[in-house]
Parts: sequence; structure tokens; C-alpha cells
Amino acid sequence: MKRFITLFLFTFIANWAAAQQKIDYDKKLKELGIALITPAKPVANYVKMVRTGNLLYLAGDGPWRADGSYVTGKVGVDLSVEQGYEAAKQTGISIISTLKAELGDLNKVKRIVKVLGIVNCASSFTDQPKVINGFSDLIVAVFGDKGKHARSAVGMSSLPMNTSVEIEVIVEVE
Amino acid sequence: MKRFITLFLFTFIANWAAAQQKIDYDKKLKELGIALITPAKPVANYVKMVRTGNLLYLAGDGPWRADGSYVTGKVGVDLSVEQGYEAAKQTGISIISTLKAELGDLNKVKRIVKVLGIVNCASSFTDQPKVINGFSDLIVAVFGDKGKHARSAVGMSSLPMNTSVEIEVIVEVE
Amino acid sequence: MKRFITLFLFTFIANWAAAQQKIDYDKKLKELGIALITPAKPVANYVKMVRTGNLLYLAGDGPWRADGSYVTGKVGVDLSVEQGYEAAKQTGISIISTLKAELGDLNKVKRIVKVLGIVNCASSFTDQPKVINGFSDLIVAVFGDKGKHARSAVGMSSLPMNTSVEIEVIVEVE
Repeated sequence: MKRFITLFLFTFIANWAAAQQKIDYDKKLKELGIALITPAKPVANYVKMVRTGNLLYLAGDGPWRADGSYVTGKVGVDLSVEQGYEAAKQTGISIISTLKAELGDLNKVKRIVKVLGIVNCASSFTDQPKVINGFSDLIVAVFGDKGKHARSAVGMSSLPMNTSVEIEVIVEVE
Repeated sequence: MKRFITLFLFTFIANWAAAQQKIDYDKKLKELGIALITPAKPVANYVKMVRTGNLLYLAGDGPWRADGSYVTGKVGVDLSVEQGYEAAKQTGISIISTLKAELGDLNKVKRIVKVLGIVNCASSFTDQPKVINGFSDLIVAVFGDKGKHARSAVGMSSLPMNTSVEIEVIVEVE
Repeated sequence: MKRFITLFLFTFIANWAAAQQKIDYDKKLKELGIALITPAKPVANYVKMVRTGNLLYLAGDGPWRADGSYVTGKVGVDLSVEQGYEAAKQTGISIISTLKAELGDLNKVKRIVKVLGIVNCASSFTDQPKVINGFSDLIVAVFGDKGKHARSAVGMSSLPMNTSVEIEVIVEVE
């Protein structure tokens, strides 16, 4: 009987400790001043993400705002680097919103693995990393070490609907 | 003896049911009016695909025709959106041809996971999704739900040999 | 006792044989005239690589030289195809240097799976494969069959810090 009580208490404490390790992402996002959005639907015959094993492959996402509008224009021509940074951050908010909508709980995110960050820009533009930092800084602020990703930042001559940024992500989940 | 016969019959029926679930892709492609091609050889020191675990990583493919020629030119400049759509569809035919040649049986395709669809276009072009739909519509027509993929559609200023479309795909196989 | 000696000898020979299969990459790189560099640090809030399962996702890398400088300019405008080939090779040296620094032993590389090779070039440039061959030829020279990868070669209108080439790689490790 004593052994049973000990086991019960141990299990209870272990579960409690595990629950404590869970991050209250709703609270964290609020503290960071980030409001999630209703993710945009795919504009064609594809899906928002596909899971294979414990990897999620997300479709390319853009700087969608809560009202359904999005940031357009070429960085370095129509937008400053700072505005590009904000567009990349907005894309991050859209991606986190998609993850939340699909996973239910952001605690299921084990690692942000790989990021391809694309900047819509002129051929003379060379500050793509400063733009995509808007995404990376947000992701690391939200997910901490789990958010530290391998990244490529590149510049393309045009993007769908003239969006300023497009980002695709691979996420490891539980 | 009775048990043996029961087991034999059960195994026979189970195998027969599994065979029924297999899709006759040759028939399906014919119904869709799609003729597979002999896949083009890599133009350099690389291979058509690499398997790791149950994922196939395919090399970037283009709009190859059966006679070895391919669709060239920038969409929005040299080609209309509709012609771009056809080039993306032709690229899909080339990719299905490669999968068939390498896997032997398209029933081994478990899921088309991730697609990067690249349109060769001018910097003012913004209809990349409408072009890459030529690929996505074909893949979903052929593979059904297994064909529903996460996708990025982007515009690049130039592609090898001035091909109009380049698409790379990750496929989950049995 | 006799059985013990047999077992001992067998284990010794098996280990010796396994050691023989290991490649002396330091020697091989020297023979190929390749000097590894100290890998450049990420220029922003991301990491050089992320491992998930037995796959390594590497951040996009560029043509870094040992002295910390890098090859800049657009191929076909500022650089010839041959100079672009050398830039792609230099990017390969940087990537092998990163793998060596992170893995300790290049024998842990089981397969170079997937390569996205990006050439910084004008919109009229169509020889991206000839440029990215600088990377592919090096990787196959160093890793042999393990180095044979699925590849996409593309042209982008601009890259970070005006680097001439950016390459991202997925590697399967032991």
C-alpha cells in the first residue's frame, strides 16, 4: 500500500512537472504583442502543409494581415528594408497562425528546421538577410532554442500577387 | 485441415482486395490523355533522384516533350499564362515519367509532399500560381488525395537553357 | 580458451577491416588540392545546420574564401561562366568545411541528398548548370558515389551581399 502511494505521488509529480514545461504560447504571443490571424486559404489546387513522418512541409506563405490584405511591392524599390523586415515578420505571424490552426497546440512544435526566405526585390538589392531577419527574430522570440533554424535568404525578381516576401518552412513536430 | 483451408482462403481474399485497391495508372493516364515520355538525362554531374528513408528528392525538372525538345521563354513576355500553364503541365508529365521509370509502379507513390514551382518570368509578372496550377491540377488528377501537396510558387529571372518552368518535388514512397 | 582467442582475432580483424573502409578525407582533400576554411558565422538570427532524424539541413552557403572575403558579382555580367564555376566550387569548399567542423569526421556523411544551386545572374543568362557544376564536380570528386545528389540549378536576380552563388544542401548522416 505504501509502495502504491509512493508510485502514485511520483507519477502525479512527474506529470505536473511535465505540464510545467509546457509553454503558455497564448500568453507568450500576447506579451510579444503578436495577434494571430485566420490563415489564408491556398489560392490553388494545393494544401497548406503535408506531414511525412515527424516533419511538416509548409506551403510558401506571405505577409498576410488580419483583414485579408497583404504587403505588396519590391523591397528596395517600393519598400524600405525596415518595411521589408516588417513584411517578413508578418509572414512569420501567418506561419505561426497556420501551425496553431493545424496543430491545435504550438507545444507540438519540436524544432523549426529549415527556412527558405524569399525577398521580392530589384536585381541590385543585396540586403535580403536584413529583411528575412524580421521572420527569424520573431520565430526565435516565440520558440526560443526550438526556433533556431537553418536558413537561406534569397532575392527573386517577382512573387505571386506582387507579395513582398515569401517564406517556406520545414518543422519537426512531436 | 479445415483451419488451413480457412487461412488459405482468408489470405487469398486479402491479397485480392489489396490488388483491387491498386490503381491502374496506365489506364488512368490514358483516360486523362497523358502520354509519358522517356525522361531526360541529367545535364551534369548529378542524379535524377535520391532516396533517403521513405522520401524521394527529385532533381529540378522542366517542360520536356517526347521528342526531346522543351518549352522555352519567359512567361508574360514570350509566353502567355495559358502557355505557361501548359509548360507546367508538361513538367508534371516529365516528373511522373521519371517516377514511373525509377519506381516501376506508380502505386508506390504514397504522397506528393512538397513542390517548389519556379516560373521563368519578367520582374513585373505576378501570376505564378496560375502557371504552376498546370502542374498541381495534373498531379491531383492523376494521384487524387495522394497528390495534394504543400507548394511554393515563385518567379525567377532566368532558368537553365531558358526553360519556362522548373519544378522540384519531394515524394513519400512505400 | 581457444574459442576466446578465435573470437578475439575475429573481432580484431573485423574492426581492422571496417577501419580500412574509412576514407582518409584529409589525405583525399590534400590530393585534390583543396584547403578547408574556417566556416563563416551566420550573419543573422539563425544557425548553420539543423539535424532532424538522420538528415542535416544546411543553411544557404556562399563562395567564402579562407581570408573571410567572398566572390561577388553577377555571372554573365561581372563574372564569366568559368569564374562562376570557381565560385560554385568555393561554395562547395565552404560547405565541406562546415560539415567537417560540425561532424568532426567526414566519414559520417552517408549521402549528399539534395542540392539547390542558385546563380546570381542577369535575366538573359541560361548556363546555370555549367556554373553549379563547380559544386557538383567537387562534391563527387570528394565523396564519390555518396556525393551523387539530386539537384536544381536556378538563376536569381540578386543574392545577399551580392555573392555570386548560394547553395543549400540536405545531407544524410550516420
